[in-house]
Amino acid sequence: MGIAVVGLGRLSLDAILPGLAGSKLCRLAAVMTGDKEKGQRIAAQYGAPRESVYGYDEWDRLGNDKGIDVVYLVTPNGMHCEQVKQAARIGKHVLCQKPMSNTAAEAEAMIAACADAGVLLMVAYRLQYEPHNRHAAQLVRAKTFGELKLIEAHNGQVQDKVPQWRDNLALSGGGALPDIGLYSLNFARFVTGEEPCEVMAWAWSTPGDERFTEVEENIAWQMRFPSGVVAKLSAAYDAHEARTATLHCQTARVNLDPAFPYHGIRLHVSHRSPDDPASEVEEERVIAEIDQFATEMDHMAECVLTGCAVRTPGEEGLQDQRIMEAIYQSARENRPISLPVITTKDAFRAPFAPDGGSRG
Amino acid sequence: MGIAVVGLGRLSLDAILPGLAGSKLCRLAAVMTGDKEKGQRIAAQYGAPRESVYGYDEWDRLGNDKGIDVVYLVTPNGMHCEQVKQAARIGKHVLCQKPMSNTAAEAEAMIAACADAGVLLMVAYRLQYEPHNRHAAQLVRAKTFGELKLIEAHNGQVQDKVPQWRDNLALSGGGALPDIGLYSLNFARFVTGEEPCEVMAWAWSTPGDERFTEVEENIAWQMRFPSGVVAKLSAAYDAHEARTATLHCQTARVNLDPAFPYHGIRLHVSHRSPDDPASEVEEERVIAEIDQFATEMDHMAECVLTGCAVRTPGEEGLQDQRIMEAIYQSARENRPISLPVITTKDAFRAPFAPDGGSRG
Amino acid sequence: MGIAVVGLGRLSLDAILPGLAGSKLCRLAAVMTGDKEKGQRIAAQYGAPRESVYGYDEWDRLGNDKGIDVVYLVTPNGMHCEQVKQAARIGKHVLCQKPMSNTAAEAEAMIAACADAGVLLMVAYRLQYEPHNRHAAQLVRAKTFGELKLIEAHNGQVQDKVPQWRDNLALSGGGALPDIGLYSLNFARFVTGEEPCEVMAWAWSTPGDERFTEVEENIAWQMRFPSGVVAKLSAAYDAHEARTATLHCQTARVNLDPAFPYHGIRLHVSHRSPDDPASEVEEERVIAEIDQFATEMDHMAECVLTGCAVRTPGEEGLQDQRIMEAIYQSARENRPISLPVITTKDAFRAPFAPDGGSRG
Amino acid sequence: MGIAVVGLGRLSLDAILPGLAGSKLCRLAAVMTGDKEKGQRIAAQYGAPRESVYGYDEWDRLGNDKGIDVVYLVTPNGMHCEQVKQAARIGKHVLCQKPMSNTAAEAEAMIAACADAGVLLMVAYRLQYEPHNRHAAQLVRAKTFGELKLIEAHNGQVQDKVPQWRDNLALSGGGALPDIGLYSLNFARFVTGEEPCEVMAWAWSTPGDERFTEVEENIAWQMRFPSGVVAKLSAAYDAHEARTATLHCQTARVNLDPAFPYHGIRLHVSHRSPDDPASEVEEERVIAEIDQFATEMDHMAECVLTGCAVRTPGEEGLQDQRIMEAIYQSARENRPISLPVITTKDAFRAPFAPDGGSRG
Repeated sequence: MGIAVVGLGRLSLDAILPGLAGSKLCRLAAVMTGDKEKGQRIAAQYGAPRESVYGYDEWDRLGNDKGIDVVYLVTPNGMHCEQVKQAARIGKHVLCQKPMSNTAAEAEAMIAACADAGVLLMVAYRLQYEPHNRHAAQLVRAKTFGELKLIEAHNGQVQDKVPQWRDNLALSGGGALPDIGLYSLNFARFVTGEEPCEVMAWAWSTPGDERFTEVEENIAWQMRFPSGVVAKLSAAYDAHEARTATLHCQTARVNLDPAFPYHGIRLHVSHRSPDDPASEVEEERVIAEIDQFATEMDHMAECVLTGCAVRTPGEEGLQDQRIMEAIYQSARENRPISLPVITTKDAFRAPFAPDGGSRG
Repeated sequence: MGIAVVGLGRLSLDAILPGLAGSKLCRLAAVMTGDKEKGQRIAAQYGAPRESVYGYDEWDRLGNDKGIDVVYLVTPNGMHCEQVKQAARIGKHVLCQKPMSNTAAEAEAMIAACADAGVLLMVAYRLQYEPHNRHAAQLVRAKTFGELKLIEAHNGQVQDKVPQWRDNLALSGGGALPDIGLYSLNFARFVTGEEPCEVMAWAWSTPGDERFTEVEENIAWQMRFPSGVVAKLSAAYDAHEARTATLHCQTARVNLDPAFPYHGIRLHVSHRSPDDPASEVEEERVIAEIDQFATEMDHMAECVLTGCAVRTPGEEGLQDQRIMEAIYQSARENRPISLPVITTKDAFRAPFAPDGGSRG
Repeated sequence: MGIAVVGLGRLSLDAILPGLAGSKLCRLAAVMTGDKEKGQRIAAQYGAPRESVYGYDEWDRLGNDKGIDVVYLVTPNGMHCEQVKQAARIGKHVLCQKPMSNTAAEAEAMIAACADAGVLLMVAYRLQYEPHNRHAAQLVRAKTFGELKLIEAHNGQVQDKVPQWRDNLALSGGGALPDIGLYSLNFARFVTGEEPCEVMAWAWSTPGDERFTEVEENIAWQMRFPSGVVAKLSAAYDAHEARTATLHCQTARVNLDPAFPYHGIRLHVSHRSPDDPASEVEEERVIAEIDQFATEMDHMAECVLTGCAVRTPGEEGLQDQRIMEAIYQSARENRPISLPVITTKDAFRAPFAPDGGSRG
Repeated sequence: MGIAVVGLGRLSLDAILPGLAGSKLCRLAAVMTGDKEKGQRIAAQYGAPRESVYGYDEWDRLGNDKGIDVVYLVTPNGMHCEQVKQAARIGKHVLCQKPMSNTAAEAEAMIAACADAGVLLMVAYRLQYEPHNRHAAQLVRAKTFGELKLIEAHNGQVQDKVPQWRDNLALSGGGALPDIGLYSLNFARFVTGEEPCEVMAWAWSTPGDERFTEVEENIAWQMRFPSGVVAKLSAAYDAHEARTATLHCQTARVNLDPAFPYHGIRLHVSHRSPDDPASEVEEERVIAEIDQFATEMDHMAECVLTGCAVRTPGEEGLQDQRIMEAIYQSARENRPISLPVITTKDAFRAPFAPDGGSRG
C-alpha cells in the first residue's frame, strides 16, 4: 500500500515517517509539502522516488500516481476539509490527523465528499489502536471490576513560545481543547462506548500571554453519559507535561500514567488482594509497546485491502467535533449544554472487539 | 492537657485514642458515650479514671471535672452544633471533627457560642498539619515550579452496606461531599491560600441503592479561584479506594497519591532534569510519617497553653460549609453558583508558615 | 505482662518504648540504666512507678519486683551474655536484642543458664514476626512461584562519625556483619527454612577511617544451602541507606525494598500475566504495617502466658552466631568454610505457620 | 556503510535488522545464512539485493562485494573465531556479538588476525553505548555521590526447553555466565573503569535438567577491584526474568531496574533531600530510549569512516574472556583466583567521555 504523506512538520518527521518504515503493509509512496527541497531530502531518506514529491497545488498530478493508495493528512487542522475534498476528488483514500476539522459542518462535508467518491475516510485516533488503552477499555466493557463510576483525565504540556500555527484560530480551530484535550474526550467515549448527553466547561487563559490571544490556554470540563458515568476532563497549554487517565470502578482503580504519549504508556490497576481482603495489590500490567503510527496505518491498509470497516471513520471524528462545539458553547455561556441522548454502543465507530490475550 | 473524647465510634477507637497515647502534650482525661460499659472498657485501656466516663446528658458533671481542658467531638455531624454549645457553656475548649456542622447557619452559631464563652474552637482538619500536604502547599506558595494552573483531586471509597448514620441526612448533612469530598475542597483552598469565587457541580447516585436514598453517592465539581486557577474535584461512595491530588504547575507536576489517608501519604514531583532539559526526573520525596491526630491535638494544646492562633479555627470550617452549600445548590439547579470574591490570602485560617526543612 | 527494659539507648527510646505503649499484652514495668536521672524521666513519661528505675548493679532488687515478668535486653552485644545470666539467676524470662552475643560460646552459655533456671529465652528477630517478610517466606515455602533459585540481599547505612560502642570490637562483636548483615543472614535462613552448609566471604574497610579500625566496614558473602539455593549477601557501613532482599523463583521475582527497616517495608512481585503470557505484571502487595516491636513483645508474652513455643528461641540466635563465626573465618583465611549439613526444616525455630490471610 | 549480517537467528530478526532500518550511517548490504530461502526473504524485506545472500561457505564471494564494509557476526559463540579470521582474510571490518569467543586463546587469535589484516574488530557491547548505563557510569566516575563501595548485579531468565545451541558447550562456551552473566561482569568493569584482581565463584545446576547437562544453570560470583570495590554478581537460566544492577555509593543508591534488556531500561537514584537532610528523595531519571543496535552500528561506522578508536575493541572482549576463565576455574576448584593487578583506567577500551547533557 502506497501512502502519500501530506505535510512535513514535526509529527511527520519524528513519528509518522519512522512509523511507516516499520509498517508491515505500507510504504512511503509520496510526500506533499510547501518546501520541495525538504521534500526531496525526505523522499531520498525514506526511499521514495524523486518524482513523488508534490506541492500543495499538485493534487491532479498526485491523482495520476498509481503507486499511491492512501493520502495521510498531517497538516494544520484548518486545511483538512479542503484537502480531504481534493483527495476524494482524485479518488484516493484518506487518513486524516485529528482533530478532523475546525467545525462539525466541515466534518460533515468531508464525510459526504468521501462517500460520494467511494473512498475510505479514517481519522487517525492512534490511541484506539494502542494496547494499553484498549486493555483499559476491555476492563471497563467486560465489567471486570464492577461498574465504572467516574473518569478523570488530563492532558497538559508547555506550548512553545515561538509563534506557530497552533496559536492561530483559523488554522487550529482552538487551543488546548482540540489539540490535546481531544485525547481525553475521545478516551472517555472509547472506553465506555457511550456518547455524552451533557457537558459543562470552563476555559481560561493567562492574560497577556501572546500564545493565548486567539485560542484558549486551559479548559476543564465535565461530561455526563447516559449510564450515569461522569467524566472530569482537562487540558492545559502552559503546565508541565502530564497525560493521565483514571477509571474509578467499583472494585479497582485503573490508571494510565502516562496515558496518551507516543511512547512509554503505562497501565496500573489497584484492587483488593484476591487472597486477603484486607490487603491491597497495586499492579503494573507491562504490555509490550507497539508503534502507534505503524499500527493505525496498517489498519487503514487492511481496510482498503479487505473492505473491512474502519474502526475510526469520519463519523467518529464528526461526533467529537459536535461535542467540542458544545463544550465551547458551555464555556462561552457559562451553563451546561445538553447533547442528543444516544444509547447505541459504539454508535460512530466499528464495534469493539478485544485483540486477544489480555490486551483487550 | 486533659482531653475528653466525645463519641466512641471507629474513628475514635482506631485513630484518635491511639494518637492521644503518642501525643506529647495531651492525655485522655475523659470519654463521653452512649454506651457506658464500652466507655469503662476504653477508659481502663487508656488509663483514664473510672469516674471520667460520661453519658451524653452529663455535660454539667463534665464541666466540673478540672482535669478536662478540651472536648474533642467525634460524633455524627448533625450533633456537633448542640454539643459545641454545651461545651462552650461549661467553659471547655472545643476540637470539632470535620465537617464542622450540617449547615453554615449552625457553624455560625457554634462560632458565636465559643466566642461568647471565651473558649477556643478548632476544626480537626488534620491534613493542614500533615507534612506531605504542607510540603505541597509550600511548593505552590513559593512558586517553586512557577504558577499553579490546575488542581485535580478525588476521594473515593466503598461505603459499607450495613446501615449507618452516614446514610442519614439529618445526622450526616450529606453524602460523599461533606464526608470525603471535603478533603479535596479544603486541600484546594489550603494549598492556594485562596477562596473559590464560583462553583459548578453535578451529584448523582445509583438508582435503587439503599445507601444513597437520602445522601448523594457521587459528586464532581469545579471551583474557580480569583487568581484564575481552577480545581476539578470529585468524591465517590461506591468506587474502589482512591485518594489523590495533583497540582499542575508550569514546570512540575506535584502529585499526592495517596493524598488524604491516615497513613502512607506519598508525594511525587515530576520535572525536567536540571542537568539535561531533554530528560525528565520523577521524584518521590520520602517524608517521615507523623501521627496526624497526635499532631493536631498537640497544636490545639499549644494554642490553649500559649494563646497562639489556632491554624484551623471555626471560621475555616464555616467557609467550607458555605462553599458546600453553594456546591449543593449548583448540583440542584444545574448551573454555576458565584461566591463572594475574597482576595485576602488565608482569609479564615492562621497565616501559612513553613515548618522548617523541606517539609514546608 | 510487666517488661523491664534494660538499656535506654536510641533503639529503646525511638522504637521499643513507643512499641510497648501500643502493645496489647505488655506494659513497661521497669527500666535499668546507667543514668538514673534519664531513667526517672522515661519512667514518668511511660507511666512506670518511680521505684522501678534500676541501675546495672541492682539485679537482686529487680528480682524482687513481682511486677516484672520479662527482661528485655537492649544493651551493647558484648554485655548480653552476662546480663542474660543475671536475669536467669533472678528467675525472669529474657527477650534479648540481636545479635544474641559476641560468640557462639557465649550464646551456648546463655541458653544453658536459661534452661537451668527454667526461664524462656527469646531473641528479638523482629522481622520473623513482620507480615511482609512472612508473606515472602510463605510464597517460597508454598512454592507459589516454583522453586527458589537464588537469594540476593543487602543492608547498608552510613555509620555516624561520632565514636560509639559499635566501633568497639569488645562491645559489638564485629562491624557491619552482626549489626546489619545479620538481617540478610537470618532472612535467607527464615524464608527457606534451611541452614547453610558452606559460606565464602570477603570483608574490607576503607583504610584510615577511624570508625573501622576494630570492626569491618563492608562484608560480602555467599551461602550455599543443602537444596542447592545460593544466597549472595552483603552489608555496608558507609554506603547510602539501602535495605533490600530479592527472591529469584522460577516464575516470579519477589522483591522486598525496603526489606528490613522499622517502618515502610514494601513487597513487590513480578510475574507473567495470568491472562497473557506475553505480558508481565508488576505487583505491589500493600500489606498493613504493624508495630514490629509491639508484635514481638506480644508474642513473648503469649509464650509466657500459654507455654507455647517461642518462634525465635536462643537456639535460633546461636545458629546465627555459628554461621557468623564461619563467615569471619572465611574472610580471614580467604577460602570457603563448610558447615554441618542440617536437613531438618526450621531446625532451630518453631515450625513456620502462615498467619492466615495472604500474609502468610 | 554496507553491513553484512552473518546469522539469521532471533537476535538478528528481532533486533539487529530492525535496528539497521533505523540506523543513520548503516544499511543492510548482505546476509549470510545456512538457509538461503530465509535469506532471500529477509533480503527482500529489508531491501538488500537478491545476489547479496551468502552461504557460510561463500566468504570469497562476499569478499568481492564492494558494497560491504563491515561484517556483523550474530552466530553461535563457538563459530566466532573462525568467522572473524575469514572476515579479516577478505579484508572486511568486523563487529562481533558478545561473548567474543569460547576462550581467551581464541580471542587473542581473533585480535591478531584483524590486526594483521588491518581491519577493525569491535565487540558488540551494546550497553556501553546505552544512555542509562552511561549515565550510571558517569555518576560513579565523577564521584557525584561520593565513593562507590559495592556493586550488585543479576541477570536471569528462563531458558527455553526446546533444545538449542546454547545448551551445547562447544557452540556456547558455557551457560548462564557467557550468555547473560557477562552483562553484569562487563557492567562492573565499565562503570568503574577498573579491572578485577580476584574472583570467587560458585556454579550450580538442577540435577536432571536436560538443558543444563553441558552448561551451568546458575552462577554467583564476587569480584574484587584494586580500589577496594567489590561486586556481587549472578546469572540464572531458570529463574523469572530479572536484570538489575545497583551501585551503592556513599551518598546515594543508584539502581538500574531493568539494567540490561533491549528496551525499557530505567534508572533510579535514592539520596537525601538537598533541602532537608531528614528526608529521602527517590528519583527516576527518565532518559529517552535509543535503539541500542542502531547506536552501536553507527559507532562502528563512524570509526571506520573517521579512524577514531573503537570504544569496545577486541581487547575489551579478550579481557572478559580471561576473567570468565578465572571465574570458571574458581567454581571448579572452589577457591578464590587472583588476576593480574591492572591499575590503568579503561585499560582495554577507549577512554570514557560523557556524551553531553546529563546522559554521561
